Amino acid sequence: MKLNESAAGVYVIAVTPFDDNGRIDMESADRMVEFYRGCGVAGLTILGMMGEAPKLDTSEAIAFTQRVVRAAQELPVVVGVSAPGFAAMRQLTVAAMDAGAAGVMIAPPGTVRTDDHVAGYYDQCVTAIGADVPFVIQDYPLASGVVMAPGVIRRIVQAHPSCVMLKHEDWPGLEKISTLRTFERDGSMRHISILTGNGGLFLDFEVERGADGAMTGYAFPDMLAEVIRLQKHGERDAAHDLFDAHLPLLRYEQQPGLGLAVRKSVLMRRGAIRSDAQRAPASRLSATARSEVDFLLRRLARRDPVRAAAFA
Amino acid sequence: MKLNESAAGVYVIAVTPFDDNGRIDMESADRMVEFYRGCGVAGLTILGMMGEAPKLDTSEAIAFTQRVVRAAQELPVVVGVSAPGFAAMRQLTVAAMDAGAAGVMIAPPGTVRTDDHVAGYYDQCVTAIGADVPFVIQDYPLASGVVMAPGVIRRIVQAHPSCVMLKHEDWPGLEKISTLRTFERDGSMRHISILTGNGGLFLDFEVERGADGAMTGYAFPDMLAEVIRLQKHGERDAAHDLFDAHLPLLRYEQQPGLGLAVRKSVLMRRGAIRSDAQRAPASRLSATARSEVDFLLRRLARRDPVRAAAFA
Amino acid sequence: MKLNESAAGVYVIAVTPFDDNGRIDMESADRMVEFYRGCGVAGLTILGMMGEAPKLDTSEAIAFTQRVVRAAQELPVVVGVSAPGFAAMRQLTVAAMDAGAAGVMIAPPGTVRTDDHVAGYYDQCVTAIGADVPFVIQDYPLASGVVMAPGVIRRIVQAHPSCVMLKHEDWPGLEKISTLRTFERDGSMRHISILTGNGGLFLDFEVERGADGAMTGYAFPDMLAEVIRLQKHGERDAAHDLFDAHLPLLRYEQQPGLGLAVRKSVLMRRGAIRSDAQRAPASRLSATARSEVDFLLRRLARRDPVRAAAFA
Amino acid sequence: MKLNESAAGVYVIAVTPFDDNGRIDMESADRMVEFYRGCGVAGLTILGMMGEAPKLDTSEAIAFTQRVVRAAQELPVVVGVSAPGFAAMRQLTVAAMDAGAAGVMIAPPGTVRTDDHVAGYYDQCVTAIGADVPFVIQDYPLASGVVMAPGVIRRIVQAHPSCVMLKHEDWPGLEKISTLRTFERDGSMRHISILTGNGGLFLDFEVERGADGAMTGYAFPDMLAEVIRLQKHGERDAAHDLFDAHLPLLRYEQQPGLGLAVRKSVLMRRGAIRSDAQRAPASRLSATARSEVDFLLRRLARRDPVRAAAFA
Repeated sequence: MKLNESAAGVYVIAVTPFDDNGRIDMESADRMVEFYRGCGVAGLTILGMMGEAPKLDTSEAIAFTQRVVRAAQELPVVVGVSAPGFAAMRQLTVAAMDAGAAGVMIAPPGTVRTDDHVAGYYDQCVTAIGADVPFVIQDYPLASGVVMAPGVIRRIVQAHPSCVMLKHEDWPGLEKISTLRTFERDGSMRHISILTGNGGLFLDFEVERGADGAMTGYAFPDMLAEVIRLQKHGERDAAHDLFDAHLPLLRYEQQPGLGLAVRKSVLMRRGAIRSDAQRAPASRLSATARSEVDFLLRRLARRDPVRAAAFA
Repeated sequence: MKLNESAAGVYVIAVTPFDDNGRIDMESADRMVEFYRGCGVAGLTILGMMGEAPKLDTSEAIAFTQRVVRAAQELPVVVGVSAPGFAAMRQLTVAAMDAGAAGVMIAPPGTVRTDDHVAGYYDQCVTAIGADVPFVIQDYPLASGVVMAPGVIRRIVQAHPSCVMLKHEDWPGLEKISTLRTFERDGSMRHISILTGNGGLFLDFEVERGADGAMTGYAFPDMLAEVIRLQKHGERDAAHDLFDAHLPLLRYEQQPGLGLAVRKSVLMRRGAIRSDAQRAPASRLSATARSEVDFLLRRLARRDPVRAAAFA
Repeated sequence: MKLNESAAGVYVIAVTPFDDNGRIDMESADRMVEFYRGCGVAGLTILGMMGEAPKLDTSEAIAFTQRVVRAAQELPVVVGVSAPGFAAMRQLTVAAMDAGAAGVMIAPPGTVRTDDHVAGYYDQCVTAIGADVPFVIQDYPLASGVVMAPGVIRRIVQAHPSCVMLKHEDWPGLEKISTLRTFERDGSMRHISILTGNGGLFLDFEVERGADGAMTGYAFPDMLAEVIRLQKHGERDAAHDLFDAHLPLLRYEQQPGLGLAVRKSVLMRRGAIRSDAQRAPASRLSATARSEVDFLLRRLARRDPVRAAAFA
Repeated sequence: MKLNESAAGVYVIAVTPFDDNGRIDMESADRMVEFYRGCGVAGLTILGMMGEAPKLDTSEAIAFTQRVVRAAQELPVVVGVSAPGFAAMRQLTVAAMDAGAAGVMIAPPGTVRTDDHVAGYYDQCVTAIGADVPFVIQDYPLASGVVMAPGVIRRIVQAHPSCVMLKHEDWPGLEKISTLRTFERDGSMRHISILTGNGGLFLDFEVERGADGAMTGYAFPDMLAEVIRLQKHGERDAAHDLFDAHLPLLRYEQQPGLGLAVRKSVLMRRGAIRSDAQRAPASRLSATARSEVDFLLRRLARRDPVRAAAFA
């Protein structure tokens, strides 16, 4: 089923499992999907811009997409197709949609600057991938260097019915969510789904501001899902209590570069993947960092035994 | 007294108090210093790169420095003197040291790129300010765009006896602290003080890695001081418990741009300054943001009544 | 007299003369003004963003401005007042206008990103310097990192009557001149003066596209003035012949970093200043570079004996 | 035959011919190779970083490489393989070398910062592509944002025997060539080939400084080849006379973005390709720009009738 503007909940940014020889571990891909399903995610996102996508060649990227989509079954899969040029973007989009993906996600390259450039870039994307492919705007200035004003996002949304979601990763960004929801209320922009990133660091308030959920890869997506659920049910303090219990680890995992090593290590220990191996250029946990993660997990086990009891 | 490599504890990044007409509020400057003293800080840092320094003209910057130094009495004051050119840097340094400052802090401009450029830049700084002025390297790639390898910091430290401190704000940066302390242990670098920034977001582990303290402006510097004290006394869990209690607010305050508005608002409510006014370009808290800060303070009052009871 | 939108011809970017001990050479400043006057310039620009402005402290900048304005007499002087903050911008603007400057020039800082940010930044500038001070937009993405769409320049021009000139330094930028002149013809933007920079590298065509002249510092401003005059009189081939004769040297002088050393060296040899000394950080001509400049000047003497005979 | 450190002359950056429907025009690829051969080039470079490489998908890139290599026969072909990740780099390298390419060219991504990062990046490249594949360092800070100190280039050259060439595109860069040749003379670095880029804007002096030739795509590669030949034979004034005749057009073609449209237009008119079509995002010549190119070509025809008589 194709992605649409009613998407909500956790679309987890999935890692790419490798074995210790650096090959994609397809069995772990299946296991990982089941793990995420068990965490209550609403969908998966693969081949994210900052993740391990550039470490796959084209045929690997396609094979991995096919495997994940098949394993995900009814869970929608969003595929990152950001690329330096439109040819590669189109090639991967066609392959992903053929494989059954729900939609694609696109961040602009760092050379895009003015409002007109940003809007024009997404015009060209739609020409390249086709107007029938649902797409997600990835708005991540810290990584891309491109700042998109709320009004520019509105221009893109209004120009392209196939734009169904914003991956919100501006920083700081709480007011941006509020502004976009105001646009919807005043009738100047149609409704889209807003899922938030930034490692989940502000998820507690983002949902209150109007976000529909999270698109991030924190190693406890079950916590993210529960925080969203609690907020939707008006249990504000419970939502914050749970979120705050995870914040020390979540913040530790959000460190640029190192974060992926933390995340894969915890996912391996939770049984989601068989190895936390990365392809070069790989970040590695030093012995000290590893013991810091252990320490954080032990403390988490006391504050959230429901999800972290295994680390006590 | 001049700054030296034994500096430790909290050197709080002080705000610049303005009145509601945009004038520097010198009485609040005095009051603020007393507030910080009461929080147990070991020193103050003013005119920081990301702060309000560019909003002062030269004579204001000098007058504010004189006022703070006088109020601080025995507390050492570090003055940020980063500037697009060496003439302004020298001018402010001379005025600051004449006023009784303990030392100055310098970040390189974004045009500095290779290892040789970075080291050469600090050579030129020392020529400009004089070899007798103690200085702090501000290592803040997220803001400056300049990445300093540990080996480059070592080159600067070894070349210049007047380099006595690193303001560590690399991101992620825990391993960098460990590496620099290893340099000291293997005898390849003399000891310097390392105080950490990044809004304190990793202070809990930074001290464990060998940092001597924090140079940051979180509105509860009393918490920072206590965490450092607990860590120095081996009370690890107590240190983390206290830190974790503040993490939700600390993280909220660390939002780029908006953070200063949060900080000044809390400092005003704590009685440290009379007004949270900013000069243009000012970040402003929306009504929603203001209520989010209230909410975080109320929750903090429950977890750290010692410092935040007033917000219950 | 104040700068207005009818400004045309060469507003030469003046160097800052230092003596060999690094002091501002005020007598050379006088001599330099006379040299430029003899070259037929229409005005002068001092304290430019990429030039030597950051090497002066505030009092030096003001003293130099006063000296140049006095020497310039009826020639209008534009003063660069770009600064990291509005306090310093206002301070220098007030001093410059008090000294008799014709107007000021402002480039945005690199942190300014979206169309709204750019327009909003100039709103704040006008608040800071006062709506009665004529100002020049410096549009120089290669140095500032800020790209201004033609529509944004129009917004600023329409919002602020005191915006009277664009220093056009976008790259490539011929179409931008054409677009802005089209805005004027279609009535959507009032007329402003457009002077071009980029070391004059495209001056031959820029005038044909509608530029009113050049604001650049090439060491033969007499050539720039004559090219503009020839173009205004319809002598297209003569204009290009003269321009092309200088292009090899002009291109050599346009090298970033090194260019200032080339320029000052030639100006010294032309008698405009007594020393080509720079303050740190200084670019220096190697012996080879020096002989390359000599070679280019000898060749120029053959192609433009009117201006370069002395170098034969 | 594999590329080695004795490479010299013009390695022309070839365009990618498209037909008016946006398909690669393989017959034009053949014709273009013959055109370049007739211009006296020593080799070809395809899929350059700033060129049209990102507009091809992987299979197109491989097919185009195969076609050009076959047509080139004894002329060596260098293939640009810069990529966001090592998997794609390896995939394209294997395909290119299988097709008979002489070597590959690699620029670092913009996230690479310190000296150690740069050197480490090329270590990882050699691991990815294999130590038996000759490679070219592309040193182009204006596009990549990565500044490589001469000492870092030396580290890479000394660490990897398969590094045989530097594409020198630093700006300004004349001293860098001199420094690297000094390293060779003092025995601290083995000899490599240095070919220069930057559109040829400084080729006249680069050869005098020790460059072995040019790797750039100016639409008159026959001029580049002749300038290099004249310099090698000590005919300095003749070399500069010829270079200066082309400088007005060469400078016009060097405009970022627009340059490719100029180049393809001239190459089409010279019969090298059938169409000057570009794939999106395409730069287009306005009617005015087109007439400016005509004007420059007519003037060139007078100054260099040997190569440009057709445009009189």
